[in-house]
Amino acid sequence: MSTADSMHPFDAAIALSADGDDRYRGHTSPAYQNMVGPFGGVIGATLLNAIMHHPARLGDPVSLTVHYAAPIADGGFELRTRVMRTNRSSQHWLVELTQDDQVAAFATALTAVRRDTWGATDAVFPRVPPARELAPLPPLPHAAWTGRYEMRFVDGLPGVESDSGHPSQSRLWIRDQPARPLDFLSLAAICDAFFPRVYVRRPKRVPAGTVALTTYFHADAAELSAIGTAPLLGVARGLNFGKGFFDQSAEIWSEQGVLLATSHQVVYFKE
Amino acid sequence: MSTADSMHPFDAAIALSADGDDRYRGHTSPAYQNMVGPFGGVIGATLLNAIMHHPARLGDPVSLTVHYAAPIADGGFELRTRVMRTNRSSQHWLVELTQDDQVAAFATALTAVRRDTWGATDAVFPRVPPARELAPLPPLPHAAWTGRYEMRFVDGLPGVESDSGHPSQSRLWIRDQPARPLDFLSLAAICDAFFPRVYVRRPKRVPAGTVALTTYFHADAAELSAIGTAPLLGVARGLNFGKGFFDQSAEIWSEQGVLLATSHQVVYFKE
Repeated sequence: MSTADSMHPFDAAIALSADGDDRYRGHTSPAYQNMVGPFGGVIGATLLNAIMHHPARLGDPVSLTVHYAAPIADGGFELRTRVMRTNRSSQHWLVELTQDDQVAAFATALTAVRRDTWGATDAVFPRVPPARELAPLPPLPHAAWTGRYEMRFVDGLPGVESDSGHPSQSRLWIRDQPARPLDFLSLAAICDAFFPRVYVRRPKRVPAGTVALTTYFHADAAELSAIGTAPLLGVARGLNFGKGFFDQSAEIWSEQGVLLATSHQVVYFKE
Repeated sequence: MSTADSMHPFDAAIALSADGDDRYRGHTSPAYQNMVGPFGGVIGATLLNAIMHHPARLGDPVSLTVHYAAPIADGGFELRTRVMRTNRSSQHWLVELTQDDQVAAFATALTAVRRDTWGATDAVFPRVPPARELAPLPPLPHAAWTGRYEMRFVDGLPGVESDSGHPSQSRLWIRDQPARPLDFLSLAAICDAFFPRVYVRRPKRVPAGTVALTTYFHADAAELSAIGTAPLLGVARGLNFGKGFFDQSAEIWSEQGVLLATSHQVVYFKE
């Protein structure tokens, strides 16, 4: 069964209907509302979903860059996909999201057939308490999307002094709420579920929003599927703040210490 | 004077001629040849150059993502720019590079009018010997572009055992050769001038090449101009290697410890 009633709210939020070759229609979801407009992670996942649905897709996502070009109004939107280039085992994509014929968001992506090779992880899996020992964060008022994730902060909760050794770092266990088996789409959204680092770095609350986000997927579909609904460990840090923008980098780990994705974004902030 | 003879080889390599609205023509440069095709950093800078030349540009580069979609043949190419969205103080861009009407590379970018705000740098400026105390790397045979940069390695030279504490890290002083005053274009190219981390991480030489690269610019035009021809400190590290791809992250610092840019890329490798 996958009627609208039994569908997970994430799947309902990123759902698309085909509207001719390379064209899809979607709709914002109240379940993933942010303070202004929809939670960006779900928009990014929706753009990726158009690629996942596309009959010409070759391989799985390796890289996804999302530009949040303008505020997205509540309601319907159109997506248009374009294969920029197809190689023997990889493919480059452009997806545009329009409202009233104006581009509000767009994404580029690389998909590829992954093959077994030598591998190693140089990022360091942090030693933190297990998820079950940490309390989930209550959903924030005026940001419904925060209720769609179970977030258990180790440290770096905005507004709470912490001694993590890094002034803009947060570490938290995160998974979909209600639980949903992990896939590229939910992982893409989780990569954007870190609060803006400027809120961790200083107490002042100012308008801030992601402008562009790039995610690299290190796991393949089978590995993500094997994780099921287990919590993921997210680590996010700011690098540089100034002149109205800052950048932050994040890692998403499995409970077993497998690095599933790394993600980087540039964020607008005021003052 | 800026005749072809007196032009810096970098400026000659990224030079464009306008070919109607939103269209430009360029040509690969033997001076920046890589083992196969042109050095990717110069291709990325060429794509950015189309935006820098565009009469409708609003503000300076904040973010640049380049997809290297297919091998670029020696010779001419066409560029086509498209403003995806213009906001009050920021603008989103797409630039395509085609050869024989096929997309060989493309870039998305954010430009914005930067304003003074609160700022801080959380990345850590490494303590290393000054450039003058380190010997420049001789240019590599079969990769002319390496002769276009003065690279003075602190550690992490491929094929040389080092004890930097990070298995895939390199730290080096770098600047254009011959010297050229820094701007967004040369900084964009320098962000792609780090050897693939897989060559630092293990002795085996295998085919490898950048597939997609994202750079965040933290400095504005005046700050870059003030640096002039001083060497920059580059730091690059791998994060995860496996299934045919790895990602690496880099920081570019001024001698005075100002973080000028951070950059992330995903790289294809064989075996």
